[in-house]
Amino acid sequence: MPARLKLGFFVLALVSPALAASPGVEYPTGYRQWAHVKSMVIFSDKNPLFAQFGGMHHIYANADAMRAFTKGGTFPDGSVIVFDLLEAKEEDGAYVAHDRKLVGVMRKDRAKYKATGGWGFEGFKGDSHEDRMVKDANAECFACHQKQKDNDFVFSGYRP
Amino acid sequence: MPARLKLGFFVLALVSPALAASPGVEYPTGYRQWAHVKSMVIFSDKNPLFAQFGGMHHIYANADAMRAFTKGGTFPDGSVIVFDLLEAKEEDGAYVAHDRKLVGVMRKDRAKYKATGGWGFEGFKGDSHEDRMVKDANAECFACHQKQKDNDFVFSGYRP
Repeated sequence: MPARLKLGFFVLALVSPALAASPGVEYPTGYRQWAHVKSMVIFSDKNPLFAQFGGMHHIYANADAMRAFTKGGTFPDGSVIVFDLLEAKEEDGAYVAHDRKLVGVMRKDRAKYKATGGWGFEGFKGDSHEDRMVKDANAECFACHQKQKDNDFVFSGYRP
Repeated sequence: MPARLKLGFFVLALVSPALAASPGVEYPTGYRQWAHVKSMVIFSDKNPLFAQFGGMHHIYANADAMRAFTKGGTFPDGSVIVFDLLEAKEEDGAYVAHDRKLVGVMRKDRAKYKATGGWGFEGFKGDSHEDRMVKDANAECFACHQKQKDNDFVFSGYRP
């Protein structure tokens, strides 16, 4: 096969549906007024998630997701969970939130996102509502979330 | 004056209205579903608030208080702001929330709490809804909050 044809095949594979982002996971407008599930500050590279998710993160849930967080059971279609990641700066013995790094979103739709546990995944860079970060939801998101199969692929638990 | 009488006078002074807690500041039932204003982790005694407020704290606001947080201006009567303080433990390069240390509450009622900037103050120990911590709202709370007079005696700003 000539090199050009090989390259064409490779590019096609990269944009094939199996490697696409989750379609239809919209920016979660108004999530800052949703219920707050829990928070964490990842502050050093002793944590394996530091490079990707270092900073202060807050988890928010819409009403559908909150019912599952508080009452247990599977998350119903329409559930949306937000991972809001802010820079954390050390100031006088405290970690204080600064600029937003990204807004991660999980949206439940069992039919639409069958290949990734019923969840669509997206990331929005900084404060942007348009700058999408996820190219391959399966490799970039679900590969890790699938370890949480017994918890409907969700890492966080509600902190009452 | 005999020693017994002196002691009686002293005890009376301790429970006089000027040194009382803020009456009527109830436990803020349901606040964990209110809007989340901001968070901070105070982790070392380099911070002057460490002894009193070390840990991870989250600020929550009811709907009345949220209008002032997002639109500016004075907090209306009925505004309630919650300071939810959890132990923060260091685990693998991250600060993770553990047991609740206290739930601090500010409730706005300009007529009722005239002596403390229009705000009533209370603290509930751990997860208790009854174990009240504030004996002297003026000395224990307002002495510090009055530095924030230009911000209606509130320290936190909303983190959008």
